[in-house]
Amino acid sequence: MLYTFSEVLEKVNNEVKDLKFERKPYSLFEPIEYILEIGGKRVRPVLATMAYNLYKADIEKTIPIALAIEIFHNFTLLHDDLMDRADKRRGKPTVHIKWNDNTAVLSGDAMLIEAYREIAKSPKEALPEILNLFTDTATEICCGQQLDMEFEQRLNVTTDEYLEMIRLKTAVLLACSLKCGAMAANAPESDADALYDFGINIGLAFQLMDDLLDVYGDPATFGKRIGGDILCNKKTYLQITALKSPETGKEMQDWINKEVFDEQEKIDAVTGLYNKLNLKGLSEEMIESYYQKGLSCLNKVQVDDNRKRELRNLAESLLTRKS
Amino acid sequence: MLYTFSEVLEKVNNEVKDLKFERKPYSLFEPIEYILEIGGKRVRPVLATMAYNLYKADIEKTIPIALAIEIFHNFTLLHDDLMDRADKRRGKPTVHIKWNDNTAVLSGDAMLIEAYREIAKSPKEALPEILNLFTDTATEICCGQQLDMEFEQRLNVTTDEYLEMIRLKTAVLLACSLKCGAMAANAPESDADALYDFGINIGLAFQLMDDLLDVYGDPATFGKRIGGDILCNKKTYLQITALKSPETGKEMQDWINKEVFDEQEKIDAVTGLYNKLNLKGLSEEMIESYYQKGLSCLNKVQVDDNRKRELRNLAESLLTRKS
Repeated sequence: MLYTFSEVLEKVNNEVKDLKFERKPYSLFEPIEYILEIGGKRVRPVLATMAYNLYKADIEKTIPIALAIEIFHNFTLLHDDLMDRADKRRGKPTVHIKWNDNTAVLSGDAMLIEAYREIAKSPKEALPEILNLFTDTATEICCGQQLDMEFEQRLNVTTDEYLEMIRLKTAVLLACSLKCGAMAANAPESDADALYDFGINIGLAFQLMDDLLDVYGDPATFGKRIGGDILCNKKTYLQITALKSPETGKEMQDWINKEVFDEQEKIDAVTGLYNKLNLKGLSEEMIESYYQKGLSCLNKVQVDDNRKRELRNLAESLLTRKS
Repeated sequence: MLYTFSEVLEKVNNEVKDLKFERKPYSLFEPIEYILEIGGKRVRPVLATMAYNLYKADIEKTIPIALAIEIFHNFTLLHDDLMDRADKRRGKPTVHIKWNDNTAVLSGDAMLIEAYREIAKSPKEALPEILNLFTDTATEICCGQQLDMEFEQRLNVTTDEYLEMIRLKTAVLLACSLKCGAMAANAPESDADALYDFGINIGLAFQLMDDLLDVYGDPATFGKRIGGDILCNKKTYLQITALKSPETGKEMQDWINKEVFDEQEKIDAVTGLYNKLNLKGLSEEMIESYYQKGLSCLNKVQVDDNRKRELRNLAESLLTRKS
């Protein structure tokens, strides 16, 4: 049986909702339930389950893997928010704001361990390879966060360095989700690898889209303030390109260094620089190119084309989204 | 072949020394190498290897488990030092002092993941049960640290609560080390459980000894300043007992609340309260009692008594140590 995207999403959402951590002291686990309840798109666990479903119908077998990946992803958000001193996450106070820094550290640690508790429930034959992929991916994501923090201190980050950083910080977890699902279903290695590559390309496109929406999104549907990345000088493909262009570099750098400014003026001015270089168009071209590369990886997967339709639709919806 | 304690220790020390984390960015992994290089007694990995050696001679097979446990233990020190704002660890600056708080968070996370990377190399048949025990233990240790932090804010912690906290924070990892070693050797379940209980009792005795040495140790051999726990109002069996005694409670509480004081005067005064209640003697009795309970657990392990000698000696040396 082939499940639709919405069926899988509903199942995953229910499973995440049912997660309870009722150990003592509950004070350690309450922040874990809190951050998981805040929500999110649940893209990663859905990808794992859909990849499994390409091969097998009993998708409940992938639930522990799906949960492990969603718990892990939210663990990275919890610790990243602490390191970035972010006050809000999806409109709600972050864990270190609602509780305190130590709670964010320790509940985050407990959460990473919970992710491994779920991974350990993977089908026994596939456990060693799933465990290794999960661990490699977890390390890569830490590397991505480290690079992200280091790049904040630098004005000379190259586009290649930026793409490598978002590959590590974002793309590998989408790729890992798909490949774990395939491995749990005992899929051929070449399929598992093609799904991984599909995930990397979709992940890169996804992050570039994220950065683009932050500047060019529709305020009515975006959900956050347009220009948030510009205000906090976040490294993005847009900023890096504007910095290295002889036409806009000096002005871009001035805006980054300015400590006192009118917020809307900064957003408008920097957006103006991006417009001058046609960065919206260039970004969209890159996104389209990664999207096409992703689709060609998906094409290599040796299952009936009909069965891949839902994954293709999901990829498309991620890249045409408004928020 | 039966290895002596010193042979196992030498092997473990060499393996820890050989651990290299040469991924990029190295800035993420350098603090991991740093904290592992600072040293320590390596008691836990030695216990894992010695438990394995009760049954099998090819002790190199337990090295990944031994390393996982030592890496995990040092990960907890790294994050605990951050949460406790400790400046020094074994005489060296802690990671958050030498680098910064964010490095301590993120390199700690990477370190926990490295521990799982090693655990994943356990003998394949035993992997699921070792993974589950390791994960349960890791969660318990987080619970122990959470309780420890919560107890700092309370003056009415009971002896039972304190013993439960040190069971979680300290004893379970010694117990887990022994049991993982036994499970890797495919030992009978009853032996693995008896070794676990041996570890719990020795671990409780070990922590009580730690607290006792901090007050009554020989300054010439202790290595740290005598009375450090008294100065920072650390919850110990000694402090808890002095607090609840009608004879010393009020004075103990006054010393805890005092914000301005002469350090040596406080140490001398609180030690005087402990002396009044004969807490050194009472502590030593508890230590001896846990030690004996531990030995009786070890006696239940169904291997030739000769083979258990090194473990018995190790337990004894931990409880007659001077530092």
